[in-house]
Amino acid sequence: MAKETQFVEQIADINTNFPQWYTDVVLKTKLVDYGPVKGTMVIRPYGYAIWENIQSELDGRFKKRGVENAYFPLLIPMSFFTKEAEHVEGFAPEVAVVTHAGGEELSEPLAIRPTSETIIGTMMAKWVQSYKELPMKVNQWCNVMRWEKTTRPFLRTSEFLWQEGHTAHYSAEDAQEETLGMLETYKEFVESCLAIPVITGRKTDKEKFAGAVATYTMEAMMKDGKSLQSGTSHYMGQNFATAFDIKFQNKDGVLETAYTTSWGVSTRLIGAIIMTHGDERGLVLPPVVAPTQVVIVPIAARKPGVVEACEALKANLEGAGIRVILDNSDNSPGWKFNEWEMKGVPLRIELGPRDIEAGKMLCARRDTCEKLEKPLDGAADTVKELLATIQKDMLEAARARRESRIVYADDIQGILAGVDGGNFVKAGWCGCRDCEDKVKEETGATSRVIVEGERAEKCAVCGKKAEKMLIYARAY
Amino acid sequence: MAKETQFVEQIADINTNFPQWYTDVVLKTKLVDYGPVKGTMVIRPYGYAIWENIQSELDGRFKKRGVENAYFPLLIPMSFFTKEAEHVEGFAPEVAVVTHAGGEELSEPLAIRPTSETIIGTMMAKWVQSYKELPMKVNQWCNVMRWEKTTRPFLRTSEFLWQEGHTAHYSAEDAQEETLGMLETYKEFVESCLAIPVITGRKTDKEKFAGAVATYTMEAMMKDGKSLQSGTSHYMGQNFATAFDIKFQNKDGVLETAYTTSWGVSTRLIGAIIMTHGDERGLVLPPVVAPTQVVIVPIAARKPGVVEACEALKANLEGAGIRVILDNSDNSPGWKFNEWEMKGVPLRIELGPRDIEAGKMLCARRDTCEKLEKPLDGAADTVKELLATIQKDMLEAARARRESRIVYADDIQGILAGVDGGNFVKAGWCGCRDCEDKVKEETGATSRVIVEGERAEKCAVCGKKAEKMLIYARAY
Repeated sequence: MAKETQFVEQIADINTNFPQWYTDVVLKTKLVDYGPVKGTMVIRPYGYAIWENIQSELDGRFKKRGVENAYFPLLIPMSFFTKEAEHVEGFAPEVAVVTHAGGEELSEPLAIRPTSETIIGTMMAKWVQSYKELPMKVNQWCNVMRWEKTTRPFLRTSEFLWQEGHTAHYSAEDAQEETLGMLETYKEFVESCLAIPVITGRKTDKEKFAGAVATYTMEAMMKDGKSLQSGTSHYMGQNFATAFDIKFQNKDGVLETAYTTSWGVSTRLIGAIIMTHGDERGLVLPPVVAPTQVVIVPIAARKPGVVEACEALKANLEGAGIRVILDNSDNSPGWKFNEWEMKGVPLRIELGPRDIEAGKMLCARRDTCEKLEKPLDGAADTVKELLATIQKDMLEAARARRESRIVYADDIQGILAGVDGGNFVKAGWCGCRDCEDKVKEETGATSRVIVEGERAEKCAVCGKKAEKMLIYARAY
Repeated sequence: MAKETQFVEQIADINTNFPQWYTDVVLKTKLVDYGPVKGTMVIRPYGYAIWENIQSELDGRFKKRGVENAYFPLLIPMSFFTKEAEHVEGFAPEVAVVTHAGGEELSEPLAIRPTSETIIGTMMAKWVQSYKELPMKVNQWCNVMRWEKTTRPFLRTSEFLWQEGHTAHYSAEDAQEETLGMLETYKEFVESCLAIPVITGRKTDKEKFAGAVATYTMEAMMKDGKSLQSGTSHYMGQNFATAFDIKFQNKDGVLETAYTTSWGVSTRLIGAIIMTHGDERGLVLPPVVAPTQVVIVPIAARKPGVVEACEALKANLEGAGIRVILDNSDNSPGWKFNEWEMKGVPLRIELGPRDIEAGKMLCARRDTCEKLEKPLDGAADTVKELLATIQKDMLEAARARRESRIVYADDIQGILAGVDGGNFVKAGWCGCRDCEDKVKEETGATSRVIVEGERAEKCAVCGKKAEKMLIYARAY
């Protein structure tokens, strides 16, 4: 019983204390733990299993797009960063530096990669000789490090895991197509696998990647109304190719400079899942990436036949490729319900003597809390269908919530009121950085993305003619 | 034609200049490239694809053994290493150290992990409370760094990729069983998937892991007769659990100290594949982990129907889960043969107008250079069988070669002559470190493994009564 009490620890109220709710959920469901060095995290097995599922889904999509995986060194000479002027300015303040190794001081300090454009650019310059080798598309799954002052597990930590794709092309058009194509791939993945609706589009120059010509982003609304940048795809033009000398002979034997792109998503996506779907009971995981999709809880487990029936059902579901566990522990059913709800398992099946006799099972959906009686016959198909429905409904629910919380403002007070109310705020923008800065200063909101195909009449800040429509939001 | 000339670059002769042959092969087949920082490597897509296949095979085996993946921070406070006395002595000289981050000097220098016993021990101490949580088995796939003076791609580089498993147990017996069980899993994997026969057994104390009670190893013979330590499994007893305070309440509520193990294999295994199977033409890859298992080369490709037939065959093989490519380039068939042989593709299928008319395909085995005429009907099954045969034959060939090169010596001159002749040398050992040191000094060979179940009469060095039989060899 000691353990039971231990577990029924409360998590903070999601409606009144969202930040504490988040911290409670990530720690108590054992997704993550704090590492001994400030700002670092340990990704525990339950969290890492989500990442493995994300990796497997994304990696298949990358390969279909002709991308090959590779691995580049962790340590980058500091001098590499200075080759692209904007890039060094953007990343130098966050870099962790190795000065000693093998008992000696190094002749040149080495940066732990905050991102790998500079080292991959260096290698591509060596590998690319002719137009025949283009496009060259490589990706790496790795750790990167950015020394941050304020950190939160998954959202911002000094070290995190990600994938970074880097491609080189023979023309601007081809590189732009890759940039946007990957953004589309990300969006399709995040919506279909993580059930997170995203708004995609271009960033303003203020918010773009250090060294890019254009950065495209996908922005997701968390339950507190803040935006989470969930992935980016950058068109570099010839900036990096010039700096790193990525040149190729074209069909006529003339030397040309390549065009490059880069794109990435990270373990942040796990934070996005938590804050998009979680509720007062804890995690709610989308079936496609949930480490456990179904938990079977025996009712009156000591009655003859119950455990056997549960085991048979488990074997049946497993055989159909469903990730299922049977909770055979000594804890009470009620305790088990709480535990697995907190851990966000999409579907719980309760099976007791009466269900077995009637050839039924009780299915409890985590997302809607509905309880459905279903026949045991054909259980695997039923469960598969239910999981697909949950996956679809989670996306629709998140989308409906987001849609209800996008407002329009035509002045800075409107923007402030909008974001204070937990909304994304659409507002006109003249195109100048000063106006973006002013919104940041006065409301704490930043421009998240330029809205495609919509225009406002005037800039919400300066009142001049608007060039673009922006979405402003407070952000993680 | 310029490109054709470029490719037919020679690789050094494997029989007269093995080290240069190795370097030529790894670079020219694009497995790897040198990184810009001395001692680092870039794993190129062709090399990384082998690693992905290794990962996928091993990871499934780990999970079957109840191991869960997780991720621990890259940076470890230097003070952690000092907690286990032997461990700090073993690793401190090789550590790369971060002293600055985020523009400031750190209050405590941080080591880039050379291995993660210390940080995982710290976390396990926090997570393990009761015997119910034991055994705890975690693994991580990650990069580690050991600053080495002399480096070679895959074999010894300052950074490499590996997996490190760490387990905690309630009894010495359970931990020992895990140590040996994992060694067995490694052996089964390396032999069945990489076609590399290994000798497994315990290391002498001189050669064991810094901080272990016992280290078990698998040693493989490379084509030059040198040994490559291909994986290790360590029984730590309570050394690390005591140093890091991994304690648990036993069934009677009494606090006990856990027993731990760790085990790992790395990208070294790619080096082992190259040096076990490679020949004068280049790589020879075992089908199970070969990125491309079959290459189809059209003969007289301009004749009507040839390319179509090749494409149909490709689709057929792909449908059966075979990793196949069709080389449709403008290069001559002879050039293609050379290229794909150098890259070690296990099976080449030639298909020309006459073959198609006769309903046949010509299959050329990379391992034996045999050419076999086979019916196009049922091609997928035929190819699968051939690949399985190649896999099996490669293991047998490597085993026969190794068996023919294990000799016995009863004095130090005999050991020297044996290793000079490219052999593993079995010799008696009294059990003292001085005798091992003397062999190293006079022959350049080290003790690789204690031979299980064999005893010699006297120590080959001092002539005293032998306690054990050792295998001595020069090693990578």
